[in-house]
Amino acid sequence: MADEALFQFLHNEVIQYIYKSSEHGEMENGRCITKLENMGFRVGQGLIERFTKDTARFKDELDVMKFICKDFWTSVFKKQIDNLRTNHQGIYVLQDNKFRLLTQLSAGKQYLEHAPKYLAFTCGLVRGGLSNLGVKSIVTAEVSVMPACKFQVMIQKM
Amino acid sequence: MADEALFQFLHNEVIQYIYKSSEHGEMENGRCITKLENMGFRVGQGLIERFTKDTARFKDELDVMKFICKDFWTSVFKKQIDNLRTNHQGIYVLQDNKFRLLTQLSAGKQYLEHAPKYLAFTCGLVRGGLSNLGVKSIVTAEVSVMPACKFQVMIQKM
Repeated sequence: MADEALFQFLHNEVIQYIYKSSEHGEMENGRCITKLENMGFRVGQGLIERFTKDTARFKDELDVMKFICKDFWTSVFKKQIDNLRTNHQGIYVLQDNKFRLLTQLSAGKQYLEHAPKYLAFTCGLVRGGLSNLGVKSIVTAEVSVMPACKFQVMIQKM
Repeated sequence: MADEALFQFLHNEVIQYIYKSSEHGEMENGRCITKLENMGFRVGQGLIERFTKDTARFKDELDVMKFICKDFWTSVFKKQIDNLRTNHQGIYVLQDNKFRLLTQLSAGKQYLEHAPKYLAFTCGLVRGGLSNLGVKSIVTAEVSVMPACKFQVMIQKM
């Protein structure tokens, strides 16, 4: 619980700090999101390196995605992804019915517009993790009803 | 281990981000340190609220300091403070012989000049924690041999 809180509070501070800088006219919303995403990317790269130090080689892309949904997600968010779907053509949808970084927000529609800034870091986290496993991707997120959340991973064939 | 890494990587990103902004001439070193310290302060406030939810009331100032050195430090840094000293006049010195946020740096003298930016957040963390326990303080840190580190807490009598 302590660790969760530490990460969560620091994550909040980072969001606030970046958005506060943007108020001074230094950058607009899109650039804030990009900054957060990039931070997540580098953290994801670092984490996956630690997590996979002693794991066996992955069989295929799906195997990698399962690792992200189970081990990686559990380490970071203390629960697994609730549902993983794929069209078998390089698109994966990871659904988390109770996404930890959204549970602190009120569940109504009122704060729905603020959701993207709480998701950007995690999109980067997934992209960075995948990247270090040799899977290039684009990761986006959407929320329809808080605190549930879907991350869409589009694999970029190289 | 996973949680440690998550916090540590994010902490590094925050430092880098803040110092990168400063390169653009937006602020100098002192202001970066202040920003990091303030972030730590707010995170410390939040954490102590969670941690002390179910603890008994503290007897006195020393009791509060012991809590910071043991429970608080263990939650955040996975180890206790190694040595707590006081002059019984409002100054406390907390020594950590292997401070987690410094262990990633080379132990030589080469990077000693970079130590302050890895300590500022934690100074704020302690100050914020103490503040929410009703103890107003000034917290500074010094490193002589990495990764050992001393935090000096000067209680501000109100």
